Order: sequence, then C-alpha cells, then structure tokens
Amino acid sequence: MSNDKTPVSVIGLGRLGAALAAAFLADGHPTTVWNRSPEKAAPLEAKGAKVVASVTEAVAASPLVLTVVLDHAAARSLLEPAADDLSGRTLLNVSSSTPDDIRALAEWATSHGADYLDAAVMAVPQAIGTPDAQVLFSGSANAYERYGSELEILGTTRYLAADPGVAELFSMGLLSAAYGTLFGYVHGVALLDSANVKPTEFLGMAVQWLNGMLAFLPSLTREIETRDYTSGESSLEINLHALEYIEAASHDAGVDPGFVLPTLDLVRKRLEVAEPVHSVAGVFETMLGRT
Amino acid sequence: MSNDKTPVSVIGLGRLGAALAAAFLADGHPTTVWNRSPEKAAPLEAKGAKVVASVTEAVAASPLVLTVVLDHAAARSLLEPAADDLSGRTLLNVSSSTPDDIRALAEWATSHGADYLDAAVMAVPQAIGTPDAQVLFSGSANAYERYGSELEILGTTRYLAADPGVAELFSMGLLSAAYGTLFGYVHGVALLDSANVKPTEFLGMAVQWLNGMLAFLPSLTREIETRDYTSGESSLEINLHALEYIEAASHDAGVDPGFVLPTLDLVRKRLEVAEPVHSVAGVFETMLGRT
Repeated sequence: MSNDKTPVSVIGLGRLGAALAAAFLADGHPTTVWNRSPEKAAPLEAKGAKVVASVTEAVAASPLVLTVVLDHAAARSLLEPAADDLSGRTLLNVSSSTPDDIRALAEWATSHGADYLDAAVMAVPQAIGTPDAQVLFSGSANAYERYGSELEILGTTRYLAADPGVAELFSMGLLSAAYGTLFGYVHGVALLDSANVKPTEFLGMAVQWLNGMLAFLPSLTREIETRDYTSGESSLEINLHALEYIEAASHDAGVDPGFVLPTLDLVRKRLEVAEPVHSVAGVFETMLGRT
Repeated sequence: MSNDKTPVSVIGLGRLGAALAAAFLADGHPTTVWNRSPEKAAPLEAKGAKVVASVTEAVAASPLVLTVVLDHAAARSLLEPAADDLSGRTLLNVSSSTPDDIRALAEWATSHGADYLDAAVMAVPQAIGTPDAQVLFSGSANAYERYGSELEILGTTRYLAADPGVAELFSMGLLSAAYGTLFGYVHGVALLDSANVKPTEFLGMAVQWLNGMLAFLPSLTREIETRDYTSGESSLEINLHALEYIEAASHDAGVDPGFVLPTLDLVRKRLEVAEPVHSVAGVFETMLGRT
C-alpha cells in the first residue's frame, strides 16, 4: 500500500458512509472506520480498514475526518467528546442538514481548531467512485486545496464557495427541481390513468417533452438574472388557464390536485403585480416575497 | 393552387389559430377564416385566405372545420347557430378544456352529424409547421384516417384514442410535468439567491442533474405500472428527510416553501400505509386516493 495517500477516518457506516470508506480503501488510503453498531464495519475490515471503538480514536487516527451520519446534530454530538482532538484536522462533513445548521456546525468545528469542509453527494451510494456521482464542496478553501485532488476518486467533484452552507443549498436546489419533475410526471401518469392510458404509453412522449423544457431553462434563467420578465415567451395568462384546466381535470379524474395548487397560487399572486402577458419566470419574485 | 387539398375553415384567429391557418395556406389548402374582430384576418387574406363574416359561412365553406378559441364553451356558443350545417363535416377542435368538457362538446357535435376530432397542440405558435410542434389527436378514427396525412403539415402528429378527451389529458399530463420541472427549478434558484449564487451559476449543473432525473423515469414508470413499490431505489424515508430539509432551508432563506409542501404531504401520507424503505413512486397510489 502506498504511503503518500492521506489517512482518512470515516465516522458513520450507513450505505453512503460505507461506500465512501470503500472508495478510499480501493484507492489505497489508510482508512479508519467507526460505527455505532460495529457489525457494519466488518465488510470494510475485510477490505483493509482499521476499525476503532470510539469517535475519539477515529478523529485521532487521521488528518482527514469524515462524518456521514443523519444530520448536523448527530455529527456534533458524536464529535463533542473528541472536540479537543479536532485541532489541526480537516472535518469533512457529508451529513445533510439545512445550510444554517451546517454553518453552525462549521463554526463549532472551526472554534476547536479544525478546518471545515462540507460535502453534498448528489448520487445514490452505488454511484460513488464513478463520474456519475456529483460531489459538491463548500467551506475551507485551504482544505479543498490540500485534499481536493484526492477527493476526485469519489466522483465528479466541484468546490463552490467559502460559505460552508452553499453545497447543501445547491443540493436542495437540485432536489427541489428533481421533486418537481418526478412528482409532476407522476401527477400526469395519474391523470392518464383515468382514461386507462398505461404509464409506459406516456413515458416516451413525456421524456421528449421534458427534454424540451430543459432547453427552455436558459431563457428562463436569463429572465430571472436580469429581472426582466417582459418578454412573455410563456405568459402568465396562458399558464394560468392551463393550470386552472389541470386543477379542474384532476378533480374530474379523481386525482388529488394538491401538487399543482401552489404553482397555481404563485401564478395568481404574480398576476396581482404583473401584466398578464409577462413571463411566468416572474414567480421567482413572488417566491422571494419581493412583490 | 392544387385542387386536391381539403378545403379548411379556421374559426378563431388568435396566435395559434392564425399560425394554423397560415400553415394550411402555405400547403395550398383553400382556407376560409373567421374571427370576432375581423382585423386579425387581414394578414391571412393577403396570403390568400377567404375571409367570411359569420361562423355559419365558415362551417359551410369546408368539410374540415377548426375551432381555435378560448375553450369548449366558446366553441360551442359560436357553433350553435351553425349546428344544422355541421352534418357530414369534421369538426377539429383545438380549443383547450378539461377532458370531460371536451367529451361533452364531442357529443353535441356528433349529435348534429359531425365527425369530432380533438387536437392538443404542444408547442408555441411559432413552432407550428415544424417537427418541434407535437400535435396530439383523439376522437373519431374515421376523421383521422381521412385527414391525418394532411394534418402532418402542422407538426409531428399522433393519434391517441377514440375517447375525444384523451388528447387534452395527455396535454395536461405533459404540462403538469413541465410545471413541476420549471417551478421546482425556480424554487432552487430562489434558495441559491439567499447565498448570492447567480441563476446562471446554477443552470448548467441543474440541466445535467435533471437529465439524470429523466433517465430515472423508466424505472419509476415500471414501478407504477406493476404497482410494485418494494424496490426502494429511492426510498420514502430518504425523500422525507430531504423534503423536510428543503422546507426548513426555504424558511431560513426567506423563500416561500409552498412549492414543496404538497410533495412533502404526499410522501407523509404514503408513509402511513407503506414501509419507509419503499419507493417514492408509490405516491401515485396516494394521488389516486387508493392509499
């Protein structure tokens, strides 16, 4: 085993933590692992990981320490007894939390002398170690400069900002778009069920259509960035009508219309301050309460 | 001008009606047009359209009659005085309405001896006449057999079902998925605004990520079609946590969390009857009230 790879400790061996530890082991990193229930460490021990009995030992073992637990609160309470050992180490927190909670965790770790880096993994655990896994980082630029090239083994990596909350914020932004896409699609499948149209009969056309929507995002994005919503390529009025039809058709078809109601509400609120011919992109202002 | 093209009448010359009439004219169809405010007919008259002063004249002029007005109610009230002239003609209604309202319009037209075909145009008016315009048809199979090849000039055409409401149902399903995608993306842009991340900094990653979501739709669709949600590739529990973080982060960031609330609600309701490790695709059952 080569000795020039950074020793790494992984605290928390759920599916994601185990996948991350396995990726470090496969790349030849001396890897120390800890988990509350130790049986999850056995497969990694067989691959060469050193299993320790406490978080304090895990922190002491490596300059780069990952926490991969439920959230910031779990990470903080596990690290608390090892706080004095954090000095001079880099804490790479992969646990999800809101950006504000991540910022608080970063402040606490920094106050104990650690460099804090946050990671948001946009991938299923099986994709870890492949380019399909997007791994977003924010926090200490020094830490990313020191370890960034070694972290590339985890997937396609990207450092975003010194604000440690930004990686989670990107993650939530991407997830919000993903939930909209998936639940909107399922709502469509449910509408078609009322006419006995099979989901697979809808799939191909929906994928083609949604690809067209992705091609529409650049112009929508430009409208938001310039805050000029006057082009009206997709006007509020036409979208209001369409959304009202979808709500009514959902009722007729016995489908819960709930999914589309906030969208309809945003368009209605936007129409209170904008012209009907203005672009639907202006709901951005409504979401932020600027109008 | 060739004489083998079917004479067509277009009732309603908003942006879409005018684009459809122009496409027929460009393809050499004898084209008759009517609009409540006659000035909209002038550009089409210059291209060779015959402008008439009443809906009855428009219906009498052609075997294929298009209504391109606000909704089924507007189409019905315009056609009412011409009801006796509908016999033996094909009514191609392009006006949007709920599927049930479309079915009622079809029944009325059929009772007056017309063949009824419904069209849903999935395109901006500028795209009419290009393959990018998806034009979906449902209703009379005879009518589509008779005119379907001529209607290919409008875009990429597809006949879906004898039930006249199905084209609108597909349209609403596609739109629901589109609204989910677009509004979810805007919600993400709004979240990132709180950390001063510009929309264009988010765009590229979001498009790449949403492409990955589209690649996920086939397995989601298979789960719905088989009603087997046990695979848990994307489990209810993990999605519940993510959605709760997005709601909390939205509050923290001063972003209206409304867009994600029905999604969160659907996942919570589904968890009342399904295992946490089950697939999130099971919200399909919740939307249909099947539990």
